[in-house]
Amino acid sequence: MSTSDSFVRDCASIREKSPLVHCITNYVAMSINANALLAIGASPLMSFCPEEMEEIVRISSALVVNIGCLDRHEIEGMEIAAATAHFLNKPWVLDPVGAGASNIRTQTALSLIRDSHPTVIRGNASEILCLAGEQITSRGVDSSALSSDAVEGAKALALSSGAIVSVSGPVDYITDGTNVLTIANGHPLMSRITAMGCTASVITGAFIAAGGDTLHAARNAMALMGIAGERAAALCSGTGSMEMHFIDELSTFNPSDYAASIKE
Amino acid sequence: MSTSDSFVRDCASIREKSPLVHCITNYVAMSINANALLAIGASPLMSFCPEEMEEIVRISSALVVNIGCLDRHEIEGMEIAAATAHFLNKPWVLDPVGAGASNIRTQTALSLIRDSHPTVIRGNASEILCLAGEQITSRGVDSSALSSDAVEGAKALALSSGAIVSVSGPVDYITDGTNVLTIANGHPLMSRITAMGCTASVITGAFIAAGGDTLHAARNAMALMGIAGERAAALCSGTGSMEMHFIDELSTFNPSDYAASIKE
Amino acid sequence: MSTSDSFVRDCASIREKSPLVHCITNYVAMSINANALLAIGASPLMSFCPEEMEEIVRISSALVVNIGCLDRHEIEGMEIAAATAHFLNKPWVLDPVGAGASNIRTQTALSLIRDSHPTVIRGNASEILCLAGEQITSRGVDSSALSSDAVEGAKALALSSGAIVSVSGPVDYITDGTNVLTIANGHPLMSRITAMGCTASVITGAFIAAGGDTLHAARNAMALMGIAGERAAALCSGTGSMEMHFIDELSTFNPSDYAASIKE
Repeated sequence: MSTSDSFVRDCASIREKSPLVHCITNYVAMSINANALLAIGASPLMSFCPEEMEEIVRISSALVVNIGCLDRHEIEGMEIAAATAHFLNKPWVLDPVGAGASNIRTQTALSLIRDSHPTVIRGNASEILCLAGEQITSRGVDSSALSSDAVEGAKALALSSGAIVSVSGPVDYITDGTNVLTIANGHPLMSRITAMGCTASVITGAFIAAGGDTLHAARNAMALMGIAGERAAALCSGTGSMEMHFIDELSTFNPSDYAASIKE
Repeated sequence: MSTSDSFVRDCASIREKSPLVHCITNYVAMSINANALLAIGASPLMSFCPEEMEEIVRISSALVVNIGCLDRHEIEGMEIAAATAHFLNKPWVLDPVGAGASNIRTQTALSLIRDSHPTVIRGNASEILCLAGEQITSRGVDSSALSSDAVEGAKALALSSGAIVSVSGPVDYITDGTNVLTIANGHPLMSRITAMGCTASVITGAFIAAGGDTLHAARNAMALMGIAGERAAALCSGTGSMEMHFIDELSTFNPSDYAASIKE
Repeated sequence: MSTSDSFVRDCASIREKSPLVHCITNYVAMSINANALLAIGASPLMSFCPEEMEEIVRISSALVVNIGCLDRHEIEGMEIAAATAHFLNKPWVLDPVGAGASNIRTQTALSLIRDSHPTVIRGNASEILCLAGEQITSRGVDSSALSSDAVEGAKALALSSGAIVSVSGPVDYITDGTNVLTIANGHPLMSRITAMGCTASVITGAFIAAGGDTLHAARNAMALMGIAGERAAALCSGTGSMEMHFIDELSTFNPSDYAASIKE
């Protein structure tokens, strides 16, 4: 199936099925993540309460775990949710925000990978290199490495973890360890809006929930992010209006029109 | 008093008194809830710290408890705040987000109702039916039932709890168990912006704080929500700009003009 | 150095160095605070997890502690972060949100001042008067006092704490206890957007991280806030679009142009 056909089919499937995407995400990202999922036709549910994790995972189509704002209590919720998703064979996305910036972030991400086998690991180059075992110098939660530098690390991480690895950057690389797909859409201003990486992760969650092949679904999610970002950047007067136009794009885009703009 | 006069009087009272509305709300909703309250002329205070709940409830005109992002620690804050509001005879609103989606949500909502007697319970049809004891199939935090299906459940819940029950949907139903008021304003796009239900709850908090009859105040709050939503939908290019226009409407609306648009 | 030159130099320094500003801020403010920092060219990191506080403070250029949404666990994170910043001689800003509204808020702010010596204390008049030991009647988290009433209290607090004290209001006063600088920019609508005070604090964090003299850096931060607010107010149709224009302004402003608009 062509990239274009695959993209159009996944977008239609999300709008038709409205998958329930359970997000354990950070406080900075919660609002834009929920709005992005609603915009594309999915249904968000934000919860991290350990006592309800099993029930919530059971009614959801996919889970997204984002370690952006860690907290002992929230880590407990993440572990239960990820283990339940793995046990129930529900697809789940790990966003290892800031892995490498602190020991607890790196260890939490690594133990979630080891114990609960994420379907997709989606991060920036610094985070992916850190999880692949490379020594990098972290600069907080933004990437200090180029996505192209992380391709070999991403392949190694995919092979060792069994997950699809999706590295965002000027070019996004999505790999199962053997095949590497690329998306060259996007705009530099996207990195000046908070939680855009987190948004890429929940959109990836919606795409893998919609069925279809995971590698291509993860690729299609990054295509949607990148093209919506390009169009929002063309319309905006700064990063405030860019965020608004970005959500407008997600809520109104024509899948065939977008498919024609995909740059691989 | 006519609906129109009652609406105009309540809006003027909020702008004049600027009631302090204490919100224990979920993380997704905090920012839009605070901005909505500021927009209409009320004064928001977001706090869930058990150690300060009594002091904060004492200086507030109304309390809103939203169980959207549960957490053991936050439940403790909710219980103290609701009990204090009940003890001090301060009006308070319960928003039972996701009741029916997990046991802890249902039980937390039911115990808050039983122990601390909310002044208003405001939710969607699924949540209200769940609290009224109906067996429903929850689909996360969005409603899988129509508001019209929940009218009898809402009346039963109002009678058993002593609260005004406000059910949002294409038509909103507001009842004290005997009388049923309706608001037919609103726009389908409102359900594609996160935390609009939570926003209806904090606006309800401001209206019941402004004095006047609770049943009509709860009705007037839903009228304001619905008309602001209609006007924002007419101006927007997607759900991102709709949210912006919605807050713009709340911060600039002319009460008499809006009153003329109320559909009962 | 003239005010204008000092302002232009600090803005250029932030854009060049992109200082990492570690924010322990409240949930209402997280998203706008992160976006404001990204807009001006700084790099935000939001974290309050006690287990990573030392590591995060070590890689950061400045710390901002905002007590807006207290929680036992978060207070622990605040104490470790502030103590680490003090020990490492990193500049840090305390925003004592709601000091005076509850005992735990006042005590948390006072103990952070006593134990970890903030570089800047930035609050509204009610908060500053409370910390200076004046008896005031708090009205939640919004100020019930005028900033001009707080000048003597601010000077006293600066002398007793060793911090620069920055009081926001129609006129902002920034003092080291002896010298008092003023900024008369801003717009009344700013007080109807949530978390604008918190945003002033994180921007102050970026300015003191950029080097230069702390008293003047704190003043320049308030000048940027005020002018961006004035320009956003001139462009907006309500408080929703005002927030968007405000971030647009921060992400696109010309420092020399803004410098010419500073009102002292």
